[in-house]
Amino acid sequence: MAKSPEQEHPVKAFGWAARDSSGHLSPFKFSRRATGEKDVTFKVLYCGICHSDLHSIKNEWGGAMYPLVPGHEIVGVVTEVGPKVTKFKVGDKVGVGCLVGSCHSCESCANDLENYCPKTIFTYNSKCHDGTMTYGGYSDIMVADEHFVVAIPDSLPLDGVAPLLCAGITVYSPLKHYGLDKPGLHLGVVGLGGLGHMAVKFAKAMGLKVTIISTSPSKKQEAVERLGADSFLVSHDQEQMQSAMGTMDGIIDTVSAVHPLLPLLALVKNDGKLVMVGAPDKPLELPAFPLLMGRKVVGGSLIGGLKETQEMINFASKHNITSDIEVVQMDYVNTAMERLAKADVRYRFVIDIGNSLKSAA
Amino acid sequence: MAKSPEQEHPVKAFGWAARDSSGHLSPFKFSRRATGEKDVTFKVLYCGICHSDLHSIKNEWGGAMYPLVPGHEIVGVVTEVGPKVTKFKVGDKVGVGCLVGSCHSCESCANDLENYCPKTIFTYNSKCHDGTMTYGGYSDIMVADEHFVVAIPDSLPLDGVAPLLCAGITVYSPLKHYGLDKPGLHLGVVGLGGLGHMAVKFAKAMGLKVTIISTSPSKKQEAVERLGADSFLVSHDQEQMQSAMGTMDGIIDTVSAVHPLLPLLALVKNDGKLVMVGAPDKPLELPAFPLLMGRKVVGGSLIGGLKETQEMINFASKHNITSDIEVVQMDYVNTAMERLAKADVRYRFVIDIGNSLKSAA
Repeated sequence: MAKSPEQEHPVKAFGWAARDSSGHLSPFKFSRRATGEKDVTFKVLYCGICHSDLHSIKNEWGGAMYPLVPGHEIVGVVTEVGPKVTKFKVGDKVGVGCLVGSCHSCESCANDLENYCPKTIFTYNSKCHDGTMTYGGYSDIMVADEHFVVAIPDSLPLDGVAPLLCAGITVYSPLKHYGLDKPGLHLGVVGLGGLGHMAVKFAKAMGLKVTIISTSPSKKQEAVERLGADSFLVSHDQEQMQSAMGTMDGIIDTVSAVHPLLPLLALVKNDGKLVMVGAPDKPLELPAFPLLMGRKVVGGSLIGGLKETQEMINFASKHNITSDIEVVQMDYVNTAMERLAKADVRYRFVIDIGNSLKSAA
Repeated sequence: MAKSPEQEHPVKAFGWAARDSSGHLSPFKFSRRATGEKDVTFKVLYCGICHSDLHSIKNEWGGAMYPLVPGHEIVGVVTEVGPKVTKFKVGDKVGVGCLVGSCHSCESCANDLENYCPKTIFTYNSKCHDGTMTYGGYSDIMVADEHFVVAIPDSLPLDGVAPLLCAGITVYSPLKHYGLDKPGLHLGVVGLGGLGHMAVKFAKAMGLKVTIISTSPSKKQEAVERLGADSFLVSHDQEQMQSAMGTMDGIIDTVSAVHPLLPLLALVKNDGKLVMVGAPDKPLELPAFPLLMGRKVVGGSLIGGLKETQEMINFASKHNITSDIEVVQMDYVNTAMERLAKADVRYRFVIDIGNSLKSAA
């Protein structure tokens, strides 16, 4: 008979889990593996609330395995390292993002693209090599192979850096991969939320001109004055959209609802790129003519590999980039989820795990 | 009052035109401009029948201006050159493809991408700088600025080379632009018609492995044995499609009817490219997940610039590539159009203008 989550591993752990597709989170006792030879164990201090967490606990993408402890924007301080760990020592500030394992033998892994490995192990709601479940960062401790752990420089505040591990790398990686990281290029960012506001910050630090495309005119002032966006288009304002036609080198589209691509394709220049990082669950309408007439492409991107995640963190440190966050207590998480569903956060909730997760001991 | 087509220019010309959206073609007297300073005038010997000709004469894309003389796969022999022409002399074999003009001042023109110039002048059903109509190659003579004329090497038969000027460059250009021209790469070609069979020939000459994806099992033998394709997938055979999942570096999709992209996206590897060169008139369904999960892109491409068209012709000469054609007489053209609508041609009709266009003089 399979062991219970509390008994299957030797190390006691405690977190908050969803038990069913209501998505309601509540205290949950489980266990984690002992620190392996190449493992880093750390005390979790902060964990960001990603929209994926909400999708997952409500089983909106299917495949939810309960009890489900979400959280893949995890930062903390190392408490133990395995004997073969070379990159970390006790006391280091570290983070874990969306991935805790991959095959290490495929072409993607060989190219530092563990995020595209077909055998990737996600940080929660996934199965480890030994068949046990992975549990995320809404919990007191974390253990992971050092390959999947990134170093957090002292210069960055831990709470603000947590969301970089998913939201940050999700927009940083396509900026690099699609060549949208050159000073002077004009980038459109569709949707000003957790992902979108990070895209603005990274793109500005790279020297780009940035235009936000949003359904919410109310976000304009802050976007321009505080985030530093160069301009702001209200997507349902035909005149504004018309005036910006053919001006952008690329667009990072963070919207995960079904939405029209035609007006976005009209914004990019010939050879321009529309890159989707949100994942609408139904197909979008793709008109062929703009692709042919302007040799435009529609692409996608999914988080990033571990090497690039460390590069992104180092870039953030150099340019003093963190996420705009609202820090919440652990027992506020269900309210936070309700507000997140309404996009009522600027721009990321981060749970103060270290101070507010009360052990059930 | 505007002059009649027969009177507006000094040089008498004769061809076949559609008068209305029935698309029926019949003899038509018109005129062409005198050879200008930088113009090349040539006697038309062969003209390919492109599917665009059929769309245009029936006004299926809208915007047809009758009388409409189609034809943009035109080859012949130079009869006169203007005093400032440097590249051609009387007696040279030359060709004109889809374009006869562009602005020469935009970024696209500066980059030898006249095909993406917003002021491009198409070879037929378009307006010249002086406001007169352009008439295509189903006619006895042709005149064009030398910039839009390509040299045809003696090594290539004129009838078989005509379709290269549209069908050839339409597939050659995306192979180069999207990096699908490296020996050893695996290319999928969707649709084995005028465009598709040229894609196979160019890709094989570039050293690629080529798989045809077609709805017609009957095309398999010829595709493999005569065209040299390495393999053949019947698109509605789930098992065949499944077995080829994730094996292709890119796909050239020549289908101009609405069709599902999901099975094609499944065929390409991570970072693979699905390039559309056909132009379905309704939007296609684009699923976001495969783009994200495999960082795949969907792109487009439209014919090619003049520099690249000459490069393509030279490549064809070096590798002895021509189109597979069925040569027809001028008065067979309406029957040819009916057969083309049923895809009843392997793989391109070419009209023997030189021998079968009887002047109405």
